Amino acid sequence: MKLYIVGFGAGDYEYMTIQAKTALEESQVIAGYTTYIDLVKDYFYDKEFYSTPMKKEEERCRWAIEEALKGKTVSLVCSGDSGVYGLASLVLELAEEYPPFEIEIVPGVTAALSGGAVLGAPLSHDFAVISLSDLLTPWDKIESRLRHSAMADLVISLYNPSSKKRSDYLKRACSILLEYLREDTVCGYVKNIGREGEEAVLTTLNQLKDMTVDMFTTVFIGNSDTREINGKMVTPRGYRIQREESR
Amino acid sequence: MKLYIVGFGAGDYEYMTIQAKTALEESQVIAGYTTYIDLVKDYFYDKEFYSTPMKKEEERCRWAIEEALKGKTVSLVCSGDSGVYGLASLVLELAEEYPPFEIEIVPGVTAALSGGAVLGAPLSHDFAVISLSDLLTPWDKIESRLRHSAMADLVISLYNPSSKKRSDYLKRACSILLEYLREDTVCGYVKNIGREGEEAVLTTLNQLKDMTVDMFTTVFIGNSDTREINGKMVTPRGYRIQREESR
Ligand SMILES: C[S@@+](CC[C@H](N)C(=O)[O-])C[C@H]1O[C@@H](n2cnc3c(N)ncnc32)[C@H](O)[C@@H]1O
Ligand SMILES: C[S@@+](CC[C@H](N)C(=O)[O-])C[C@H]1O[C@@H](n2cnc3c(N)ncnc32)[C@H](O)[C@@H]1O
Repeated sequence: MKLYIVGFGAGDYEYMTIQAKTALEESQVIAGYTTYIDLVKDYFYDKEFYSTPMKKEEERCRWAIEEALKGKTVSLVCSGDSGVYGLASLVLELAEEYPPFEIEIVPGVTAALSGGAVLGAPLSHDFAVISLSDLLTPWDKIESRLRHSAMADLVISLYNPSSKKRSDYLKRACSILLEYLREDTVCGYVKNIGREGEEAVLTTLNQLKDMTVDMFTTVFIGNSDTREINGKMVTPRGYRIQREESR
Repeated sequence: MKLYIVGFGAGDYEYMTIQAKTALEESQVIAGYTTYIDLVKDYFYDKEFYSTPMKKEEERCRWAIEEALKGKTVSLVCSGDSGVYGLASLVLELAEEYPPFEIEIVPGVTAALSGGAVLGAPLSHDFAVISLSDLLTPWDKIESRLRHSAMADLVISLYNPSSKKRSDYLKRACSILLEYLREDTVCGYVKNIGREGEEAVLTTLNQLKDMTVDMFTTVFIGNSDTREINGKMVTPRGYRIQREESR
């Protein structure tokens, strides 16, 4: 009678925490979006698997809750972190409608961190994480978040930068950011982080505007301090400045 | 001749990724801030350890780089993620001054995620991560980031919320945020995440203003949607709204 909501990191086994691995091992049932179940299936034998397509998130959560209420130990898996655009909040909301049962949220390495490590160290200083999906958020709210983050000189990590229906959203976001940021602001993106076909690109904001990325991509917009060093995207924390001052 | 910069998560062994564990196992030398070396020491025998106090970050990075250049496999450890206010950017900057050598950045679960999981699911939607330390950032920049994040209705995770010299910084930050946010905005903090003495508190912005936290604490300020559900801090992703609309 326990439900784990497990963030398993970017994809491959090694990106999972030991806590996530233990939760999956302890579980009788593992539920999740089809793609994610395929990613973990090979490592956990003797489990019952339940996979549902992308859109059926509420159904998947209810199914997992009901399995837990039957007395089973269940893991509901999400890629990256289980909180960040994940299922943890939905389960906590839905749980109100059921009798009490134990829920444990197992965090994981979200795409901003795993993608950041591939690019270098873009998120070394204050940053914002913003989703470009307007499925659950009105676009004017997304736009306001982009504008304020740019004005605040925050590094920005963009999730859900594109989809079939929203192929021009990254372009729209870049155009808004270009009202505030330099054209040569260091930017980058990583596709398929920690999975087959991983691909990292370093670029500038002006060029990013005309690039096409897919939904398995996380995008990074540097702040005014972000630099390219040896092909890596690096946002200094200020040590160098301090060092020079203390000379 | 390889330097890993390893984020090992909140503290206890189980919060480390398998990738981090493998990097540490492969290393001959493990270097880091004294407290963090003490946390990992027990799990990795037959290693050379090098620990330095908090402030000596550049010295520690240079030492690690030089050990790697001697042909050793070295891990430089950081708590949480190795990028987020970690040492990855500093190493990438300093590496420019040395002959080429291999650097691998190993990401980890940053305190915003591990602390978020303890509180519930505060970071389910767009959020900002801001450090209140003005050691390397002028306070007016921090203040501007707080103001813009509040105006953008971003959930905010605050790092370095306090120190001996800056005991009133959280109060100052809350006062600024109260210019934009409701007094009853759901807030929380977690002290010693994943370590002995872990302590989570759920509160409101108005009450948080008068609370004292220490430097081993991560603070969470909800957005206008964040609610308390069964003692947990939850920012809905919008599913409930969508569900009601589709009825
Ligand atoms: C619904 S969100 C889920 C985020 C996930 N819970 C996390 O914490 O990483 C999906 C978005 O996350 C990002 N993402 C997740 N996994 C990724 C991966 N392996 N490579 C690149 N981007 C990824 C992409 O921006 C994608 O559109
Ligand atoms: C210099 S930053 C290092 C952040 C770290 N690299 C990470 O990604 O979590 C130090 C701040 O991180 C937060 N922090 C790190 N570990 C923590 C823990 N175990 N419990 C609570 N807060 C923590 C606190 O806000 C602390 O002041």
